[in-house]
Formats: sequence, C-alpha cells, structure tokens
Amino acid sequence: MERNIKLIIEYDGTNYNGWQSQMNGTAIQDIVEGALFQLTGEKVNLTGSGRTDSGVHAYGQVANFFSTSSIPAEKFSFALNTILPKDIIIKKSLEVGSEFHARFSAKGKKYRYLIYNSTHPSALLRNRTFHVFYNLNIAAMKEASSHFIGTYNFEGFMAKGSQVKNTVRTIRETSLVKRDEIIQIEITGDGFLYNMVRIIVGTLIDVGIGRIKTQDISNIIRSCDRKLAGRTAPPQGLYLVEVYY
Amino acid sequence: MERNIKLIIEYDGTNYNGWQSQMNGTAIQDIVEGALFQLTGEKVNLTGSGRTDSGVHAYGQVANFFSTSSIPAEKFSFALNTILPKDIIIKKSLEVGSEFHARFSAKGKKYRYLIYNSTHPSALLRNRTFHVFYNLNIAAMKEASSHFIGTYNFEGFMAKGSQVKNTVRTIRETSLVKRDEIIQIEITGDGFLYNMVRIIVGTLIDVGIGRIKTQDISNIIRSCDRKLAGRTAPPQGLYLVEVYY
Repeated sequence: MERNIKLIIEYDGTNYNGWQSQMNGTAIQDIVEGALFQLTGEKVNLTGSGRTDSGVHAYGQVANFFSTSSIPAEKFSFALNTILPKDIIIKKSLEVGSEFHARFSAKGKKYRYLIYNSTHPSALLRNRTFHVFYNLNIAAMKEASSHFIGTYNFEGFMAKGSQVKNTVRTIRETSLVKRDEIIQIEITGDGFLYNMVRIIVGTLIDVGIGRIKTQDISNIIRSCDRKLAGRTAPPQGLYLVEVYY
Repeated sequence: MERNIKLIIEYDGTNYNGWQSQMNGTAIQDIVEGALFQLTGEKVNLTGSGRTDSGVHAYGQVANFFSTSSIPAEKFSFALNTILPKDIIIKKSLEVGSEFHARFSAKGKKYRYLIYNSTHPSALLRNRTFHVFYNLNIAAMKEASSHFIGTYNFEGFMAKGSQVKNTVRTIRETSLVKRDEIIQIEITGDGFLYNMVRIIVGTLIDVGIGRIKTQDISNIIRSCDRKLAGRTAPPQGLYLVEVYY
C-alpha cells in the first residue's frame, strides 16, 4: 500500500547547491532522494515546501514522498540518518494523509536571519551569519522591521528573473533582537517571493546604517521598485525555521 | 624596539590538530605564526595561554609574542585576519608590558561545553556540540555541577599521561542551563588539568542518566580515582571562552 511520508529536515546549506534538484546532483533534495533509494530501492520524487538557495540553512524544511516500502513511517528518520551525510538530518518522519503536499498545503513559513555585528568576522559562525562591521542603529531597525507587517504587493522585494505573477504576500510577524554581537531577525508570513527575506534584511541593514529612513519603509514597499529597497543580504545568514500547515 | 603583543583569538578547532605546535604544522599556533611571518618577516614564538585539543574551539584564546615590527599593535588583528584562514580570527591585538606571559600570567579561565540533547543529532551544530540522545535529569546535573565548586585535588579528573605534579585546582563558578535542545555548562577556575573539563562534563552526563548520584560527587572528587569519575566528553562541544589576567 502506498503511503505519504512527511519529513522534517535540518541542514547546513554550506556545501550544497540549495534544496532543489540540479543536473549535477549536489542539491539537498538529490542527496535525500539518493538516501531513500539506498534504503527502499524506490526512485521517489521528494516534494519540498519550497527552494532554499545555495548556502541557506534549514532547521525545519518539510518534504513529502510516496512509498510502498514496509518501513514504519517514524523509522525513516533513524534509517535515513545512518545513510545521510552529517550536515543533513531528518528530525522527524511521519505518515500523513494522501492529500498532503509539502508545497501546496503550506499555510506559512518562519525564516530567521543572523547578522554578526562586530569589528572582525566570527571564526565559529563564519558560514552561519552575515558579518556587518558598521555600527547599526538597532532601535531604528527594530521599528523598521515592524513596518513590513501586513498584506502588501512585495514586488520591490523580489529578485529579478522570478516568474511569479501574484506578488502580494502577508507578513504576520517580525522580531529583531540583539544579543552580544548577534542580531537575530525573524519573519513569519504566509509565503515569500524569491529572495524576499534577504532583501528585507538588506533593507533593514541600510536602515541601521542610516542609508534608509524608518519612515520611508512603507513608501518603498508601495513603490514596488526593487531599486529603492536595500541590497540582497547573503545566503549564509538565512535559516528556514518552520513551515506551517 | 621590541614590543610584547597580546592577541585574543577565536577559532573553530574542527580542522586543526589543536592549539599547540605539531611537527606537521597543522596546529593553530603554527598557522598564526605562519601568518605573522608572512606579515612581518619575523619568526616569532607564539606563547598561548594553554593547549586546546584537536576539535576544541575558542572564543578567547590568548597568546603573546615579541616583535620589532613597526606595525601599530592594534593593527595586527586587521592585517592578520586578511592572511589567516576564515576559521581563525584575531579578535583583538594590543601592546602589553614585557613581563606579560600568556600562560604564566593567567589567573583563571572560563570554559563552556555544549550538549545537544535530542533524539537525532544536529546538522547545523554537528561540530559544535556533543549529541546525547538519553533523557537527562537537568535538575540533578545542575545540583551536581555546584559540587565541583571549591579547591580540591582533581587528580581523578585528569587524563592519564599528564606529567603535572600539583593536581590541586580551584573551581570558582559553574553554571548549567538548558534552552531548547542545548545544555550549556560553564566552568570557571584558576586553572584546569588535562581533559579536566571534559571529564567533569562526562561525569555530569552520567549524573543526568542516573549512572552517578549527585550526592556521590564529593566522594568521587575526594577518591582521586579516575575510574570513579565519568567518561571524557568529546572535544567538539568544548570552548575556551575567556582567559583572565
């Protein structure tokens, strides 16, 4: 009998070409599909909740696949973790209804971005944070981050080349906290355009430096002009934390 | 004129054979000495506050060296960071008195140990934590950790093969906190025997599992018997946080 299996996946994106399958087989999806083939002999098509770029990390990427294997659903995580490289871990595996689709069933996502704000970069967090040596106005960044909450046409916060037609998205919640050298930004929304979180973070950094004013954020969103928003923050500070269903 | 330069160094110990010079040149000390040679043309002897084993990390290793170079002391950090690999960072460089000796002048050290306590290991923290999948009794571990505070003969908490004669050490402070899957143990003392922190952590884990009782800790210390203490926790969870002068 065919079952629909849901996986919750943590990965360190440093050594991969992102989540989505590539011709060269070095995407995280390829590695997990390869491990599933080794385990079950089935060539499954793993459906992810969405792409993550090369260098982007995940605490809770979600994927599903259909299998006729007799392995108990909750045992897939243990079995796959003995096969997978140590930078990809299945945190949980469970059986879900046949209608569950990791991408289309998703109701929202939470992303985290870590900035390392110090004179020198960090050795231990070098592939986990974006190093910014400028003095940043945290209070201004915090206020600016709240201006992103709401339902807007985020076309100006989308990387060029994306084919998406409907660019309206809802951001439900944002938070920004600084602890020692680390600034943690969290953004929760119903969905995100290509590079949207990284462009929001780049814009918040511009606010922190004083290049963009907090009170201009709403106008920048309304303008739908990519040139008015900040630069795209690099991938290594970004984490897909959770996908909501 | 010869000056004494102090360095504060952060490193990810994963890819090195520890701090102390090895014949094969892959110790962190070798790498920093090589960068200093490239920068100044001087073959200096870098004195560290103490060894760290292969795989052990540092947020604040301290070292000093004597130089006749005209580079301003505080500029060494910036210049060295352009030469050093990204997993070794000089956080600060400054001139100190000629009597300063990174090892002999040290008055104390703070170490941190991170345990990842979860069913599956962590992909993102795989080289930064020790994965323990047992259920751990955190309250018992917390109480046990406080029993290490004081001045004791810690001979039973020293790896075999160490040549140290005086095995009396003072632990000033310990703390143990759990946040999500991560248990953070911090130990501050005037000095530490070889592998002492890792054996204390191994003992605390045995307390967490129930293999050692909290009320037996003091007797285990007094016994000076290495066999009564717990196993040596692995290096990748250990961080040298700060050296006090």
